[in-house]
Parts: sequence; structure tokens; C-alpha cells
Amino acid sequence: MQSKLAIVGLGTVGKGLIELLYEKSNFLSEKYHFNPTVVAISDPRVGSLYNESGLDLKRILSLLDRDGNIKDYPDAISGWDSLKTIKESNADTIIELTPTNLETGEPGLPFIRTALKAGKDVVTTNKGPIALAYRELQELANENNCMLRFEGTVIAGTPALNLALSPLAGINITEVRGIVNGTTNYILTRMESGMSYEEALKEAQLKGYAEAIPDADVKGWDAVAKIIIIANVLMGGNVTVKDVEREGIDSITLKEVEEAAKENKHWKLIGRATKLDREIKTRVSPEKLDEDDPLSQVAGATNAICFTTDILGDVTIIGPGAGKRETGFAILSDLLDINRLKEFCSG
Amino acid sequence: MQSKLAIVGLGTVGKGLIELLYEKSNFLSEKYHFNPTVVAISDPRVGSLYNESGLDLKRILSLLDRDGNIKDYPDAISGWDSLKTIKESNADTIIELTPTNLETGEPGLPFIRTALKAGKDVVTTNKGPIALAYRELQELANENNCMLRFEGTVIAGTPALNLALSPLAGINITEVRGIVNGTTNYILTRMESGMSYEEALKEAQLKGYAEAIPDADVKGWDAVAKIIIIANVLMGGNVTVKDVEREGIDSITLKEVEEAAKENKHWKLIGRATKLDREIKTRVSPEKLDEDDPLSQVAGATNAICFTTDILGDVTIIGPGAGKRETGFAILSDLLDINRLKEFCSG
Repeated sequence: MQSKLAIVGLGTVGKGLIELLYEKSNFLSEKYHFNPTVVAISDPRVGSLYNESGLDLKRILSLLDRDGNIKDYPDAISGWDSLKTIKESNADTIIELTPTNLETGEPGLPFIRTALKAGKDVVTTNKGPIALAYRELQELANENNCMLRFEGTVIAGTPALNLALSPLAGINITEVRGIVNGTTNYILTRMESGMSYEEALKEAQLKGYAEAIPDADVKGWDAVAKIIIIANVLMGGNVTVKDVEREGIDSITLKEVEEAAKENKHWKLIGRATKLDREIKTRVSPEKLDEDDPLSQVAGATNAICFTTDILGDVTIIGPGAGKRETGFAILSDLLDINRLKEFCSG
Repeated sequence: MQSKLAIVGLGTVGKGLIELLYEKSNFLSEKYHFNPTVVAISDPRVGSLYNESGLDLKRILSLLDRDGNIKDYPDAISGWDSLKTIKESNADTIIELTPTNLETGEPGLPFIRTALKAGKDVVTTNKGPIALAYRELQELANENNCMLRFEGTVIAGTPALNLALSPLAGINITEVRGIVNGTTNYILTRMESGMSYEEALKEAQLKGYAEAIPDADVKGWDAVAKIIIIANVLMGGNVTVKDVEREGIDSITLKEVEEAAKENKHWKLIGRATKLDREIKTRVSPEKLDEDDPLSQVAGATNAICFTTDILGDVTIIGPGAGKRETGFAILSDLLDINRLKEFCSG
């Protein structure tokens, strides 16, 4: 199928997506009959472009590498803001990649609302809008006969959400436990080799895993957003930020990590959602896992989610939890699923 | 969507499927708008029934429990053989569950061919036809505008194939390594607690994991069938039984297992498919895995598959590899995916 994409918010992940679309163009066309065109990009810092016939992705990538922006791109209307891009471009699919804000969902939330109301499919990696307003947005998508997809909001391109939504359709998920934050898992893994928390955090910051103010990761907020999405999307919950019990890893001492190691146990920051009679109980906290727990050996920046189910018992998926191309792939996989559905109907 | 199913071959797995369809009937209807009816069952031992309006699943299950067959079921035409059932019933979907024969694909192969030629969707758990004739059958499905699905041929309902086909679409899988046989993994795990190979095999036989003649499992033939399916379906291979290097676990000694354990290593029967320049190299053999290998801690009858990919690096899925309801679920998940595609088009 043809598909016209508009990218709203162009940072690292958007660049990863453009690289994949450019490099895999022939493969996507031959194997999946997927022929996307990026008709618009809108970003307040990097620049905004619109060409209804499609932008030249190779040129966009060259400009980003050379200038860090796309302002010298020729042959396109420039200067449209994101709302105008969503409303007035000929894009059929909006790729919403603005930064996560867990308190307001801004700026992505109104962008997604506007796109769905206009009947445009939305693919996002932005945890804010999905954690805060999944039900409203999904209903909006249903009313307007379009699709809302967000694989990249939880452990990047490792297809945890789409696995549960599609190949595991028909199952009752009674509990989800996950290592859903790579930064904290990296820090805890480094502590197992004898580093103090402070040293491991500093190393994670130097490697670009942790921010200068690392609270979103180490105090568990990032994991909170992901466990809310899991509870609400996969388990029918209605969980909000204040419902999640939260404890970060900043209280874990090197001594505790070393004592666990002596028993072949591993401290992990675990996000947990448990289905009770009438509600979903959610928690993010450090847990000391036994050696034979499928999450126990998941080390470094790798992530993992274990679904406890009625029919299959435990099903665990392990894979990368972050990265430019890894998260770009999450968007591509959502686009390919939309394409698969449309292709099936047209064939 | 409505769907009319005919079950060809009614053993343990078919019974598991019928249980799930019966118990989850309301859930499947409400959540997925999936409203299947079993219109026919055909099995040379258990009996054959056809009622174009649908069979009473509760009654079928009662009869199976009471008599081990369905011959006393009223209100149905009885005695149709499988080919007649496929050709002349009003079923739109054939559930093909006859026993695996890796040399000829019989009796399932001609059943699947006949169904696809008649434009009927096919869901099977039978490794023989898919390992021997995947390309021919997939082309037949394409030509006749119908679907061929076979999640249950590889590690039961743990959705390894559908994960790779759908949420991982767009990725290039360069290598697959898997623990794809639960019986051998059970034996090797028991040997780690000090049992000899012979004792562990005997226990596996008592538990119903291993057959009286255990060669299909312990000599690696079952894993060979699965690795052929993985190589041909997921990696574009053209692998046949004779192409797979094969070594069973019957040569592994207790001493080797114990020495590995001292180094925190684990012997596993690994099925492996590796993409080379112009071919897929396949092998089934015991491998001694390091502690940090994601397959290393997979114990007992649990199975796991690790996909090495171009974008995500390693993605591993771990779950059950056998079982009545676990394999029944594989069929249900294929049916729900077909339903999802048809539902999308009708909406």
C-alpha cells in the first residue's frame, strides 16, 4: 500500500525511523508491498517541511548530519507548525514523537487528538498521552475509523505490546512483571561487578543512558508510565499515575547487591501489574529475584516482560529496551501492521 | 465474524481446542467479535460428525470423557471421511490435526492441499506438511485467496512463529537458536540434579513427555522438523530433512552435565538456523551454554527461541512447548488472527 507519513517531533527516534525507511525501502516494498512517503516533518527546533509528493529522505539525513537541522532543504513549504501539519497536510498517518510529559501529556496529547479526529492513523512512541489518556484516545480512534498504535512506548522495538495484543489475543493475562527501564538495569548490573550506586550512575550518564538529572529513571517514573500502559491496554485497567506504588533504585546499596549475588540472586527494578477481582494493582520497586526467574539473568540495558496467563502459564519476551534504531523499528512495525490490515482488505 | 470450523483429526490437541472454544465462547464473542461454530469433526478412531448448523461442544466433550469417542452424538450426519468432510461440508476453515509424519507428510498433506484448493482457510499443528511442503502450500493458499496458519507446529501456543511473522515484520532475522523440544530439555534438566540419562528418560516416559520409543525426541527428529519450519518460513530457506545436521542427546553423559554445572553452564539440545550468503545452514545438536545465554536458564519442559536480528539484536521468547490446552491455544490464536483481518475489512 501507499502511505503518506507526517513526522511530528524529530529527535533521535525520528531519525532512526527515517534511516530504516530509507535503508529498507526496497525490502519493505518487495516483501510487504509497503510504499511509504514522508510528506511532512514538523519540529520546533529542527525545522518544518511539507511537500505533498514526498520528501527526499537521503537529503533529510544528510542535512541532519551536517547541520543538525533541515532548514536548508529545498523544494518544500517550510514553517508549518505541528497542528497545521496534522490538519492541512495530505498525510494519512501521523508519527507523533514529541517528548514525554507524564503530568500533562503535552505537547503530544492535543496532536494525537487532532489527528484522530481528522481520521488519520497515529503511531506514537510518546508515553505521556498513552499513559494518561489511552481509553479516550482509543475511543476517538474507533469513532473516526482510524488506528492508534504505540509499540514504542514500552521497551522500544521489542514487540511486547503487539505480542500481547495480537499473537497472544484470546489469552487472559493475570499478571505482568517486567524489567522495563534499561538505565536502572544497567546500573544494577554494574553494581554486581562491585561498583557503588554513585559510580554506576555516573558511568550510565557518561554512556548516555542516564540523564544529568536521573530521577525519571532511577526513581522509577519511566517504569511507572510503562506499567500504566501495560495495565490499561493489556489488562483492561484504569490505572493513573497516583495509583502506582513506586520505589526507585536509589536506596539499593552495594552491600545488598553483593549479598544477593552470594545467593545467586539479582536485584532488579520490577514493574508489576496484577489482576485482582475488581482492579489492577500496580507497583514499581526493586525486587530480589531467584536465579531461575526468567527475568533474573536479564542484564545491562536489556529489558524483559513476563506475562502470566491462564492458558500458557508464563510467556517471557526479552530484547533491547532503548536505542535510536530499536525504537525507530517500533514505529516501523506498527506501520507494517497497519499496512498488513489494509493490504489484506485490498487483496 | 462468524466462522464454520471442521476439525480433521481429533486427539489431545483437538480436545484442548474444543475446551477453549467452549469455555471462552462469551469472551471471544465480546472482546474479538469472534463467533465460531464447529460444524464437523472427522477422525477414523473417535468418529465423524457433520451438522451444518454446528455441533454442541459441551456434548462432544462429555462424550469424549465418557466414551473416548463421539459415536453416540445425535443430530448429525456420521461417517464422512476427512476428504469428504473437507470437500462437502459447509466449513470455511479446516483445522488439520492429524499425526506428524516427517517422511511423507501423510495423512495431513493431501487434506491441506484439498482444503486450500477449495478456497478454505487451514490451521494446522501438523509439522509434517509444513516441514515438507511449506512453499507449495503457501503458494496454493495465495492462488486460492485463503490462509494457511501453523503456529502450533513450533513450541505449542508460545507464539514464536506469529511473533516473527507479524510484530517482528520488517526485521531481517540472521540467526535463530532454540530449545524447541520439551522432552529433551526435561531430561537434561533432570540430569543436572544427578540422574543418569536412562533414569531421566524413564521419568519422562512415566510423565507422558516421552514416547515408549523415544527416538523422535531424543535423537532430535522433532527439533529437526521445527528448525526446518523456522528456516523456511522465517528466513526464506529451502531446507529439507536431509540438509539438517543432527545429533541427539542420547550421547550426553551425566559426567558431562555435572562438569558443565561446575562452570555454571548448561547442556541444551539447540536447534539452530543461520543465514549465510546464499543458504540457510541448519543444525540440531547438544550445546553447552554459558550462564548469561538467554536460553541457558530455560529448564524442564519449557521452550525458548532466540532470534538474532539486524535492528534489535537478540529477541528471545520463552514459554511452554507442549500440552493439550497450550497447543489448542496455538490454533485459537491463528483463528483469532484470521478473524482480526476479516473483521478489519468488514468494519
